[in-house]
Amino acid sequence: MLKKVKEAVRRYRLIEPGEKIVVGVSGGPDSVALLYCLYALSRQLRLNLHVAHLDHGLRRGSVADARFVQALAVKLNLPFSSARARISRRGSIEEAARQARLDFFFRVAKKIKAKKIALGHNLDDQAETVLMRVLRGSGLLGLSSILPKREILGFTVIRPLLEVRRKDIEAYLKRKKIRPRRDISNSWDIYLRNKIRNRLLPLLEKDYNPGIRQALKNLAESAACDYAYLLAVARKSKAQLGRRISLKKLSKLPPALQRLVFRLNIAALKGNTRRLSLQHIREIEDLVARRPVGSIVDLPQGVSALKRKKTLVFFRKKAQ
Amino acid sequence: MLKKVKEAVRRYRLIEPGEKIVVGVSGGPDSVALLYCLYALSRQLRLNLHVAHLDHGLRRGSVADARFVQALAVKLNLPFSSARARISRRGSIEEAARQARLDFFFRVAKKIKAKKIALGHNLDDQAETVLMRVLRGSGLLGLSSILPKREILGFTVIRPLLEVRRKDIEAYLKRKKIRPRRDISNSWDIYLRNKIRNRLLPLLEKDYNPGIRQALKNLAESAACDYAYLLAVARKSKAQLGRRISLKKLSKLPPALQRLVFRLNIAALKGNTRRLSLQHIREIEDLVARRPVGSIVDLPQGVSALKRKKTLVFFRKKAQ
Repeated sequence: MLKKVKEAVRRYRLIEPGEKIVVGVSGGPDSVALLYCLYALSRQLRLNLHVAHLDHGLRRGSVADARFVQALAVKLNLPFSSARARISRRGSIEEAARQARLDFFFRVAKKIKAKKIALGHNLDDQAETVLMRVLRGSGLLGLSSILPKREILGFTVIRPLLEVRRKDIEAYLKRKKIRPRRDISNSWDIYLRNKIRNRLLPLLEKDYNPGIRQALKNLAESAACDYAYLLAVARKSKAQLGRRISLKKLSKLPPALQRLVFRLNIAALKGNTRRLSLQHIREIEDLVARRPVGSIVDLPQGVSALKRKKTLVFFRKKAQ
Repeated sequence: MLKKVKEAVRRYRLIEPGEKIVVGVSGGPDSVALLYCLYALSRQLRLNLHVAHLDHGLRRGSVADARFVQALAVKLNLPFSSARARISRRGSIEEAARQARLDFFFRVAKKIKAKKIALGHNLDDQAETVLMRVLRGSGLLGLSSILPKREILGFTVIRPLLEVRRKDIEAYLKRKKIRPRRDISNSWDIYLRNKIRNRLLPLLEKDYNPGIRQALKNLAESAACDYAYLLAVARKSKAQLGRRISLKKLSKLPPALQRLVFRLNIAALKGNTRRLSLQHIREIEDLVARRPVGSIVDLPQGVSALKRKKTLVFFRKKAQ
């Protein structure tokens, strides 16, 4: 397994020698294996590892998980940071927990002046996530979800285990006699994910394409590559258009960019566009193209779009 | 069903009043229903329909199909063109047949001075195709396959039945007492497609997402929207770079555009990039980034890429 990790590190240029890296460790098999792998590489690459753990407090046993990770850090003689999060139970808990974890890792990275955060997702996670998003209906953005390397808010999130199968991680842990915590799930839509993991992916692998995981991986990677470019162009367009979007200038953009400009404007008001569907985007397109001046389209999470005489404006309603 | 067709015609602006349209009719349920629908609209929209049928000669009974379509055209008092194709049995027969059909429809359109070609794909076809491509491993290009409206070589290919379920087409034919030819398949990878149609899609619909077909449709549409823009930009980049691609200028393009420039150059030599996989694209990227001057990457169908001192050149080997 270490060989695959090294290969991924080289191919995607995940790590430079001498770097400081925050390693997000839940205590489950993936993140524990990740920590051991990076530890094994740390002398050769002169790495400066820092273990970080967020206790979501959403589950019994979460305190024991935190103690387990702390003991691991002590054993490897690595610095350790942890915190307890308060997760709102409104909306998607999985999403909120994911966001709280990332926020905490960013805080730790900022504090210790690290630029990189390593997370333990594996090849199976990626295949499951991509397939889940295809099944739920997703555009480019959703498909380009889990990547080996991604810039977020000035930090670089890396996933060195992304080329490794789950079973290889288990074999590695067994061989090294490492016993991670079990039944740790960061996934609250575990029901759907388990069905995909235990039933759908094996079925597709057997009856449709033995290389299905690689195929889904390629799809995610192509989508990410294309999306990165589209997003960069759309950001420029958004900045040029400003908050009062000239309908004339908007109409000169190709539809793909118009859609992304809508998304970016909504994200600027709400922080994310997770509940925004293609149906909503089409409504905005219809507003722009056909509806009379003064028409309003209501979007998720209290955001609305208003068509003025010469402009399109996104705004937040005061009372939700 | 006619209502859904009218809605699609309006939403995607498929047809302008008074237009001349070549209708591709295989004789199977979809294309026969399409012909009847367009015929029903033809007075209101003053359409000028022309029936076209290509006999691939790949199957017993294909002559009878041709006669059936001709009789249909006579019955509706519409002009009719047909031809027999000689399909090479090398490579993908389905692909060759599809191409031969389109070529023939374009020839007919040119001859009668039509700009539009109507084809009979339905909502189920689209869902099956998108899913097939996800399973096989595909990028944006593959996902944006079947669209309601698409410009090809100066013609517009429209698919007015793309919002209609297969079962609704069958119900329409039954109600109208129209009996199409059966067992007509333009699909030679019928084994995989049938498995997807009869087993996988019903399973996904039942256990994973009742709206799976709509989800796949949305995915295809988003991908097409994004791909159209990327392709337009990449075409400009390709023209600017010319045949001897400056490595320096290439390196300044974002990866998504570099990849498309590779594809476009290969397509310019071979007419298509259908056998080109992400693996090949990655090899070219590796050639550009790391391999010594003089290195060559061999690509499918006799095309190669050569790294020179300051340029990257694609060429066709003489002997295959």
